[in-house]
Amino acid sequence: MLSKDKKILIVGLGLMGGSYADALTKAGYEVGAITRSQSSIDNALSRGLIRHGMADVDAGYVGQFDIVVFSLYPHTFISWIERYQQFLKPGAMLTDVTGVKGSVVYKVQSILRPDVEFIGAHPMAGKETSGVQNASGDIFKGANYIVTPTPENKESAIEDCEELGRIIGCTRISRLTPEHHDEMIGFLSQLTHCIAVSLMNCKDSKDLVRFTGDSFRDLTRIANINDEMWSELFIMNKKELLKQMELFAGQFEKLKKAVECENVDELRNMMRISTKRRNYFNH
Amino acid sequence: MLSKDKKILIVGLGLMGGSYADALTKAGYEVGAITRSQSSIDNALSRGLIRHGMADVDAGYVGQFDIVVFSLYPHTFISWIERYQQFLKPGAMLTDVTGVKGSVVYKVQSILRPDVEFIGAHPMAGKETSGVQNASGDIFKGANYIVTPTPENKESAIEDCEELGRIIGCTRISRLTPEHHDEMIGFLSQLTHCIAVSLMNCKDSKDLVRFTGDSFRDLTRIANINDEMWSELFIMNKKELLKQMELFAGQFEKLKKAVECENVDELRNMMRISTKRRNYFNH
Repeated sequence: MLSKDKKILIVGLGLMGGSYADALTKAGYEVGAITRSQSSIDNALSRGLIRHGMADVDAGYVGQFDIVVFSLYPHTFISWIERYQQFLKPGAMLTDVTGVKGSVVYKVQSILRPDVEFIGAHPMAGKETSGVQNASGDIFKGANYIVTPTPENKESAIEDCEELGRIIGCTRISRLTPEHHDEMIGFLSQLTHCIAVSLMNCKDSKDLVRFTGDSFRDLTRIANINDEMWSELFIMNKKELLKQMELFAGQFEKLKKAVECENVDELRNMMRISTKRRNYFNH
Repeated sequence: MLSKDKKILIVGLGLMGGSYADALTKAGYEVGAITRSQSSIDNALSRGLIRHGMADVDAGYVGQFDIVVFSLYPHTFISWIERYQQFLKPGAMLTDVTGVKGSVVYKVQSILRPDVEFIGAHPMAGKETSGVQNASGDIFKGANYIVTPTPENKESAIEDCEELGRIIGCTRISRLTPEHHDEMIGFLSQLTHCIAVSLMNCKDSKDLVRFTGDSFRDLTRIANINDEMWSELFIMNKKELLKQMELFAGQFEKLKKAVECENVDELRNMMRISTKRRNYFNH
């Protein structure tokens, strides 16, 4: 159990960082924050998401915290560790929310001081808005949460990290290797975003609004995308993402061939498989 | 205005036919039904969706109705007209709910008696369930509704058909040629179903449930699909659907190339386009 006297620092107060802050404050923890913009600190203070915060990285401030949650773009996270890790409290447990793991977890662990511990985590939650002003701890309610420990990590620290996921409200907690995480997320999250973006690039859609049903709306909801963050995530997971994109392109081509040849058996077979598998995902 | 003394017949009491019956009965019309199975008639009678109904096609019964809504698979609809059109009341207005128009509307009009009139319609509403037991007039609330008249149709009959859409609860009523309808629906509805089915065919997904976020759920909701009906719709709209599939495959390939070459500018540009266009679809 993560005792209530552990002090938690959020680094990066955007949608995810702010939502962590909200959930952890509501759970009774003392939560502080460091982020680039003073206005984000002010917003979080005024809404009671954090108890205190700074727009600078101050050694004395950083050194107070037992747990640090990094909610930064992947490259910014790695740079932060390179530059400021000497400020961290000895024994601190670090975690993150980054959507790619292979190219982050090993890098961070390889440069990290031996007296602090980093365990990657990925709560499968989000919104089509950004910024701390849209943050809410509610986004984690019932969400999946993946931790990606390595042989470097101690079992007790892994359990603390899993506990953190339960505290913010996630219900299904899984352990995956960073590689397995990236394969899963390449398929479940990055590929789906690639599909939505590609679909939306097909036609200038203004006049389509009058004709659409729910299916097009549902499929393209995530086409509203933070281009800076997602282009970085795609490229950092390039190898795995390309594999998943090829897998999908192959199945799409197979279906297209079946339409071309009017192969009703093949069409119906693919539809029956998709129907059966989709039923696993009904809550 | 469609006066309340018009008697309306639903042919085919499935999800869509039953939902029409429900909405029209609630709007105060006398609604009857013909469908293959007596148990569907019984279900609709017991829930008050229809005033009367038959499991046979009876000349005297069919001949009473001023408006007939066909909610059948495309081929079954055409066969019904070939076989039973002599029973229709002179001056009757026929419409349908079929998801393809080019290969249905002209065919039906070419074989139809001159003293009755057929105007194709397509309410953009549905559910991932089927059968009259799941029918509800509520599915049309706020939905888009497309009518596909041809030069054969009289303006007054077209207006009646549009009025029918408003009566069941649709709000945005559009007129398209059958060809334009098929292009739109090939893109907005059939292509999205192809994408969802292909995505679901990529992996045996049972163990993925633990890791997924909302994006994968949203993208695959429509992978739960009636294989008999949709394979028929795909093949009847083959030419247009293949064009839309190629359009999408081209954009997907362009995005894949950008990931491969780490072309961040191209990636971000496609994402900015998709974000801008997706905003048209926010209610």
